[in-house]
Amino acid sequence: MNPDPDYSAAYVVLRTEDGSEGYGLTFTIGRGNEVCRAAIDALAPLVIGDGIDDLGEFARRLTHDSQIRWLGPEKGVMHLAAAALINAAWDLTARAAGKPVWRLLADMEPEQIVDLVDWRYLSDALTRDEALALLHAARPGREQRIARLMADGYPAYTTSPGWLGYHDDKLVRLAKEAVADGYQQIKLKVGADLADDVRRMELARRTVGDDIRIAVDANQRWDVGTALEWMTALAPYRPWWIEEPTSPDDILGHAAIRRGLLPAGIKVATGEHVQNRIVFKQLLQAEAVDIVQIDACRVAGVNENIAILLLAAKFGKPVCPHAGGVGLCELVQHLSMFDYAAVSGRLDDRVIEFVDHLHEHFEDPAVIVNGAYRAPTAPGFSARIRPATLREFSYPDGPAWASEGDA
Amino acid sequence: MNPDPDYSAAYVVLRTEDGSEGYGLTFTIGRGNEVCRAAIDALAPLVIGDGIDDLGEFARRLTHDSQIRWLGPEKGVMHLAAAALINAAWDLTARAAGKPVWRLLADMEPEQIVDLVDWRYLSDALTRDEALALLHAARPGREQRIARLMADGYPAYTTSPGWLGYHDDKLVRLAKEAVADGYQQIKLKVGADLADDVRRMELARRTVGDDIRIAVDANQRWDVGTALEWMTALAPYRPWWIEEPTSPDDILGHAAIRRGLLPAGIKVATGEHVQNRIVFKQLLQAEAVDIVQIDACRVAGVNENIAILLLAAKFGKPVCPHAGGVGLCELVQHLSMFDYAAVSGRLDDRVIEFVDHLHEHFEDPAVIVNGAYRAPTAPGFSARIRPATLREFSYPDGPAWASEGDA
Repeated sequence: MNPDPDYSAAYVVLRTEDGSEGYGLTFTIGRGNEVCRAAIDALAPLVIGDGIDDLGEFARRLTHDSQIRWLGPEKGVMHLAAAALINAAWDLTARAAGKPVWRLLADMEPEQIVDLVDWRYLSDALTRDEALALLHAARPGREQRIARLMADGYPAYTTSPGWLGYHDDKLVRLAKEAVADGYQQIKLKVGADLADDVRRMELARRTVGDDIRIAVDANQRWDVGTALEWMTALAPYRPWWIEEPTSPDDILGHAAIRRGLLPAGIKVATGEHVQNRIVFKQLLQAEAVDIVQIDACRVAGVNENIAILLLAAKFGKPVCPHAGGVGLCELVQHLSMFDYAAVSGRLDDRVIEFVDHLHEHFEDPAVIVNGAYRAPTAPGFSARIRPATLREFSYPDGPAWASEGDA
Repeated sequence: MNPDPDYSAAYVVLRTEDGSEGYGLTFTIGRGNEVCRAAIDALAPLVIGDGIDDLGEFARRLTHDSQIRWLGPEKGVMHLAAAALINAAWDLTARAAGKPVWRLLADMEPEQIVDLVDWRYLSDALTRDEALALLHAARPGREQRIARLMADGYPAYTTSPGWLGYHDDKLVRLAKEAVADGYQQIKLKVGADLADDVRRMELARRTVGDDIRIAVDANQRWDVGTALEWMTALAPYRPWWIEEPTSPDDILGHAAIRRGLLPAGIKVATGEHVQNRIVFKQLLQAEAVDIVQIDACRVAGVNENIAILLLAAKFGKPVCPHAGGVGLCELVQHLSMFDYAAVSGRLDDRVIEFVDHLHEHFEDPAVIVNGAYRAPTAPGFSARIRPATLREFSYPDGPAWASEGDA
């Protein structure tokens, strides 16, 4: 579905009067990045000159402007833009506090955390009081979990071996390397050709053995019926989850696919394109997913992702973030670590996606050791792009664009 | 929810090499209109220099660009932009054919109509073959229904009496006028204050009597529980439908509200903010709505609305379009008339919203006679804005903007 990505980001710098800065971004795959830029500009009057001291109010201000809501509400381009700005405000706040975002969140009181959430449209599944109770219940053991994160990091899985178009021998080589590097899970892209997928899945299973999990990812290619047929053909090779089997808008479709695949023991995962907390709420209510895949920049930043973490905890489903792209690994690791420290308190069946791509452009890049994300220690949200990268690749004036024929 | 609308539109002119023109637009309520403009610009390379002879292919081209899909897919700003362009292509095509769009569609063969639809993600609810069968079943009587539309028009309802903030005596006066003008249904906005709503609803019911339907519209204000409480309080005054009781994304929420209000005989309506055919599909699958409210510019134009009309026909639910705004009455009347002529073949419980506002800016404005939309006869989609209006109000150079302090 994404045959020719041109990895891009709309990048935001928030600057205060005293010269402090915060950095945020939203990721795109090329065309349309300029529309996100226009959307950020449209939100700028709601930011400039106003405070961000109350990050709950700030996030609601950006997502509930009555005229802007008409364009969504709370979805698509305007929500991507809100994500960039809200994440930048978190970066700024965490830098001022001298803490990484995950630790800033983990150190908050439950009452502060629930005030960050926009509770509108959630009360039939989760109330503010229920969320408070969940957060209080997660208090015991928090310091030990933080110590464990600092010592061992947070488990990752890798998508590197599984891109469509790799030759079989490359798949085998990268799968072997992933296991040698300590990953307990890999992922293959599927959905272009069934015979190819059966061959690749059989090969991958033979390569990694029975103990390594293999997830597969269809990137929204199928209707419900096709998803069931295709995954039934792959079932003998024990895929751990099928990711994005169909449209991210299709809650009932995911529920039907999950019901159909339950006997085969294949889990259903989605979320990288799920537009907001309201759709995540329904995916959980309808028992449509086993795995909740948050994205740091698709929904309205940290605040809306806290709502989704709380919903997942209420329904007892593991959160396994989407990452990759530009900066998504850097950002989303903070949310999973906060979830472990202070929300779900669990690591079982939880893994963060890792794609080893473009990290060199970040000042505080994600670091993987032995198949796990190291816990960030630098203040902020790990969102700052290196100045040299901005100079080289900024559109349209960066030198990198000079060589592009029709940039 | 929309306290300060500033009625706006992103307006598109498609021009062919031979000088023919087609006009399309997407409506906004002010801020963010420029983001729709940026989105249209982002889609322009998919339009300029390429043909629109195959309108099914054209619509799919605009909604399935792999990089643009990342920003949605198929929702929000990018979908509003696609709507403006696709509707302009229909306007152009209908002008060339010398027919109004509704008649152009009604005269097509079923096989041509189903080729206009993007069937992706629909097959678990409606297949191409089922749609063909529906369309063939609607063939008998088509000419008589067209004749009836030409003679009597298509029933309308009016929202004019019911805006929040009107004094009670204005509500009463406008409700009386609506009945005198031949409307069989009016609509009141609700959701700001329960005691006010009870008083206004009681007053409206007393004014119009038992035989006129009164719909109410909450514009997404409520959570599920609040919707049930509020509407139970209004039930004694027999509201015909509750429109947008909660988030347009909340399929399961609407289903819960509908179940709760079924004993009181109150119908549930939504759609003006429903993002695409996939969400409409689920609203029907989940029995979440009684009334399907299409919007001419929210989804991807004529083509996606045909998919929604077919889904509604399959599930036996009436389509009652959202209108008002800028040009929505002009556009959407064509879709309802096509539905009556060639899809559902029914008029029972079907009404098109009418708001008597801004029609003077259109070259071929919607015309209401005796509570019904007259069938448009001029070629095209009634979408062309008058040149004098464009000169006066175009942003930022139109003279109307010179008087705006911070335009």
